[in-house]
Amino acid sequence: MSVTAARGFTAAGIAAGIKENGNPDLALVVNNGPRLAAAGVFTSNRVKAAPVLWSEQVLKGGQVSAVVLNSGGANACTGPKGFQDTHATAEKVADVLEGHSAGEIAVCSTGLIGVLLPMDKLLPGVETAAAQLSEHGGEKAAIAIKTTDTVHKTSVAQGDGWTVGGMAKGAGMLAPGLATMLVVLTTDADLDSETLDKALRVATKVTFDRVDSDGCMSTNDTVLLLASGASEVTPGYEEFAEAVRKVCDDLGQQLIRDAEGASKDIKVEVINAATEDDAVEVGRSIARNNLLKCAIHGEDPNWGRVLSAIGTTSAAFEADRLNVAINGVWVCKNGGVGEDRDKVDMRYREVHITADLAAGNESAVIWTNDLTADYVHENSAYSS
Amino acid sequence: MSVTAARGFTAAGIAAGIKENGNPDLALVVNNGPRLAAAGVFTSNRVKAAPVLWSEQVLKGGQVSAVVLNSGGANACTGPKGFQDTHATAEKVADVLEGHSAGEIAVCSTGLIGVLLPMDKLLPGVETAAAQLSEHGGEKAAIAIKTTDTVHKTSVAQGDGWTVGGMAKGAGMLAPGLATMLVVLTTDADLDSETLDKALRVATKVTFDRVDSDGCMSTNDTVLLLASGASEVTPGYEEFAEAVRKVCDDLGQQLIRDAEGASKDIKVEVINAATEDDAVEVGRSIARNNLLKCAIHGEDPNWGRVLSAIGTTSAAFEADRLNVAINGVWVCKNGGVGEDRDKVDMRYREVHITADLAAGNESAVIWTNDLTADYVHENSAYSS
Repeated sequence: MSVTAARGFTAAGIAAGIKENGNPDLALVVNNGPRLAAAGVFTSNRVKAAPVLWSEQVLKGGQVSAVVLNSGGANACTGPKGFQDTHATAEKVADVLEGHSAGEIAVCSTGLIGVLLPMDKLLPGVETAAAQLSEHGGEKAAIAIKTTDTVHKTSVAQGDGWTVGGMAKGAGMLAPGLATMLVVLTTDADLDSETLDKALRVATKVTFDRVDSDGCMSTNDTVLLLASGASEVTPGYEEFAEAVRKVCDDLGQQLIRDAEGASKDIKVEVINAATEDDAVEVGRSIARNNLLKCAIHGEDPNWGRVLSAIGTTSAAFEADRLNVAINGVWVCKNGGVGEDRDKVDMRYREVHITADLAAGNESAVIWTNDLTADYVHENSAYSS
Repeated sequence: MSVTAARGFTAAGIAAGIKENGNPDLALVVNNGPRLAAAGVFTSNRVKAAPVLWSEQVLKGGQVSAVVLNSGGANACTGPKGFQDTHATAEKVADVLEGHSAGEIAVCSTGLIGVLLPMDKLLPGVETAAAQLSEHGGEKAAIAIKTTDTVHKTSVAQGDGWTVGGMAKGAGMLAPGLATMLVVLTTDADLDSETLDKALRVATKVTFDRVDSDGCMSTNDTVLLLASGASEVTPGYEEFAEAVRKVCDDLGQQLIRDAEGASKDIKVEVINAATEDDAVEVGRSIARNNLLKCAIHGEDPNWGRVLSAIGTTSAAFEADRLNVAINGVWVCKNGGVGEDRDKVDMRYREVHITADLAAGNESAVIWTNDLTADYVHENSAYSS
């Protein structure tokens, strides 16, 4: 279903030969209208890949007729040549699709940083992909953008006469602002780019931005939302925004469940914070604590590491009023020893850490993973 | 030589039975004067262990007659009872040493967070240690404060007629502000507590504070500097401060070399920064990037991960002017591909990453380690 669940979109995914192992590595998503409205959110990393610099400009116009995505190379830190390659890719897509302008083609790349793309394979690949564009191509497109992902990720939410669908990739370098991920969402709702932009920013702030697998922020993160208007239905803003949030949340959860080397999905819930920002800051600090992530891997409810992580933040709290629960057992009460830690059952994949700051009424959830030897193995061998 | 290299100090290290495996776990360092001047620097973690809260108060008086240190338990997040235990430990030392006040006894603890200390073993241990105090006890004291350290750490610097010596422990939870470490430095120089404080703060800022093994800040970090005045020599400030910095630097290097599970010591040198703060911020961001740390473990000169780490900071730089060298090979030039990465020889334990921000004339060095499966193993099994 993926990006072709909504009417007005066609997609394709093929193997262009960018990846040496011959796996699919090029995806094309085309908006056939009647509308070409679009919004985008990009990495907050100040070292931005060429396709991010390109697509940011494209999105300023609020119109996107197609997105071309490649795995097998991030085209990041590749200098002027890298940017020329992105430009040439957009031109090629515009040529092949006919009647399109390169300025309305978004480009996304993912893979190793610091390597130029094999344009002699990529450009012919665009022709092959264009020839295979189909209303059933969403699944293949989702498969073609995988890097170390073990599964492809898609999601769909249905409105009353309209649909939001999407695909995502990402398994490592996952951190706020956004994760190393590419996401394309599509809808056949009849909405303008301003409305899409508002709904997308609200949704990503509480979904993808709160996924922090390994604290490492990518140079290539891109989330795009394209609207075709093909349903001829204009939903109410709240209803539409909720559908977008739901699809983003679902895709974000799929990213966490497929994170590199992870054996545990950890829901860090911060409650009774003075502000939502405090809750997010504390949640991220806990989610990024390597020692805690190792302990969770060892099924060890080592709450002292939660407190030491909270202590590094600027959030409002008093150390002797902090409470921490792991899987519902309040192992830390008032900053000290609480219920018996042996009561904590950590056999399952999902682990729920609750940090009670006892400082207000705000809360936030950050998702992360455990730190494992498999993560080390996968990431010590990735580029070699 | 350790803490007894300087005249006027005695020390001991014994097995009190705090550690279940029977290893040494209690150390005592006594300043026999004539001066009892002292300074201290403590963790900036807002969740502070009971001994830190106690010793911060003691140091406000500028006088320390003895330091009692235990491994086998951090006495952190242990509530009012934990603080009472620290107080009782100081009282016991004051009693046993005679003529001392508990208000001049500093207490340090290290080990698992969230567990009360076995006072029935610790208090008799203080008597045993006091009976073994010796001018040659520095080595034994250094051994007794080890936790996951594989070696004990000591260092000495000689002045003209005076000496600075010290011991340190620490192997995990190493991060700025300070590392999970206990450090006791002693000197027989005849100096007041204000001078000691100034020299100690200057030294820790550029040594221990720039050691960041795993980004995790402890609840117990303590660095103490005690002066006996027994040499009857008052060195010039610059000369003395340099000796303190030298001992701190040496001990900091020993901490990095013994970091849990590490196979590489990584010197992150940031050059041509607009400000020293920028250089430190960028250095820490690189040092805390798990993906880069895994790559270094795999002897992979994956400079893209260095750039993606720099990009998350607020330091002054232009992405297309950044240069990165790994072991002297400039693999990234002007934000793009530089020299052939195959030229980088990464067979040795020490790895040198140079990040050139091309934004000014300031620089800083941060030391870190690689991320290994052994680190995960050691820290997933620590408390269970």
